[in-house]
Amino acid sequence: MSRAPRLTAFAIPAIPLIRSGDDIVGIILARAAAADMQMQDGDILVIASKIVAKAEGRYLRLSEVCSSERADALAAETGKDPRLVELILRESNAISRKRLGVLVTEHRLGFVSANAGIDQSNIEAGDDAALLLPSDPDGAAAAIRADIKARCSIDAAVIISDTHGRAFRVGNIGVAIGAAGLPAVKDLRGSRDLYGRMLEVTQLAYADLVASAAHLLSGEADEGLPAVVIRGLDLSARHGRAADMIRSAEHDLYR
Amino acid sequence: MSRAPRLTAFAIPAIPLIRSGDDIVGIILARAAAADMQMQDGDILVIASKIVAKAEGRYLRLSEVCSSERADALAAETGKDPRLVELILRESNAISRKRLGVLVTEHRLGFVSANAGIDQSNIEAGDDAALLLPSDPDGAAAAIRADIKARCSIDAAVIISDTHGRAFRVGNIGVAIGAAGLPAVKDLRGSRDLYGRMLEVTQLAYADLVASAAHLLSGEADEGLPAVVIRGLDLSARHGRAADMIRSAEHDLYR
Repeated sequence: MSRAPRLTAFAIPAIPLIRSGDDIVGIILARAAAADMQMQDGDILVIASKIVAKAEGRYLRLSEVCSSERADALAAETGKDPRLVELILRESNAISRKRLGVLVTEHRLGFVSANAGIDQSNIEAGDDAALLLPSDPDGAAAAIRADIKARCSIDAAVIISDTHGRAFRVGNIGVAIGAAGLPAVKDLRGSRDLYGRMLEVTQLAYADLVASAAHLLSGEADEGLPAVVIRGLDLSARHGRAADMIRSAEHDLYR
Repeated sequence: MSRAPRLTAFAIPAIPLIRSGDDIVGIILARAAAADMQMQDGDILVIASKIVAKAEGRYLRLSEVCSSERADALAAETGKDPRLVELILRESNAISRKRLGVLVTEHRLGFVSANAGIDQSNIEAGDDAALLLPSDPDGAAAAIRADIKARCSIDAAVIISDTHGRAFRVGNIGVAIGAAGLPAVKDLRGSRDLYGRMLEVTQLAYADLVASAAHLLSGEADEGLPAVVIRGLDLSARHGRAADMIRSAEHDLYR
């Protein structure tokens, strides 16, 4: 009889709007307890990067940003606000693609995404505010994992998730920009297939798969469900980081 | 009190090796029943494209393929078997990238992937055999959905999943190459965020998210778990096709 693996995923309800300095671990644990959804060893807690960034106070006011000449030129080319373009450039290593309405860059954290992940939706500060991504999402994931262990002795994995578009395909998916306590990439190189043939190279983007599964529940619009727990997966290695999923520019055919 | 959405996913155990002509719907339903995992209205059945292709008999023998001059030249450039390259070209509309060990094409079905999805792993016919993708995955998903409804009056959605690498990031993810009975793209344009600001454009690649969630359970190596049921999601529209997620070449900045 084969194994019958199973997972469950649930969104933690009633998480309030997060403000700069908030203790998001305490809030998530309290809301989980109030809903009788206490976390367990081996759970993966997937947290939307937006609430991590808000707790870190990663807000900037566009009215306080001075755009450079380079940002002004790019703003004219893309039709974006020059001050927003200035922030995108500050957060990026390189420009990948630009076009009217589109600015895709290599973020300083290594991944390629639109607008350097800077967000103006779901921000209570109004149209003048922009929210940067968390400063060190892998570090934040590790800190949250350690904090959960310290507070309630639960050995949970943590993913900080973001929403990315992609080349070739319509629609956004969930990706992990921070991870701790699980394999980010699951390496199947050297495994054998059902007929005993050696698989040449198969690497699963495991943390991205988890982030995408959580995305089915967390939504993007007015749902307010920024924390999802995934239970039942077999986390072999516990030392992955989201940075493991960054393909270096020299190995990338599309950058 | 907020809603607390939840999903469960389970792999149907003990599905045997599939051969050309096999009734995979009958096999999956029987194995689900034997494991007391009967499907329900609103479930999504995610089936690995490989067993659909096997049931369709999409095998070719490399020894019976004559490579063209174009395939021979590309084989020399990429280090691949000229007969395999010939098959890749026949299954493709255009070449996207080539490099030693790498041949990425736009498949005749529209998506961009390595080796036109032609597979030589998990095939019992040995090293001479290659397995093409199902001929019409959206059609196959619709037919399987109708078949499940006819046999047991269950209104299930169906996804035919494949494994794709991607630009910029390491590791494969699950994608839907066929879909029926669910939204492939969930369109959040016009929704409001938590603060009432209109979201400009947010489209979720919903069927790909589901395929990636299933991928956490189905594995890629010797696990033999080609059918996963996802339960608990709110399938608003029921008329999506995987083709909805193909970005047209003229709107793609990376093709």
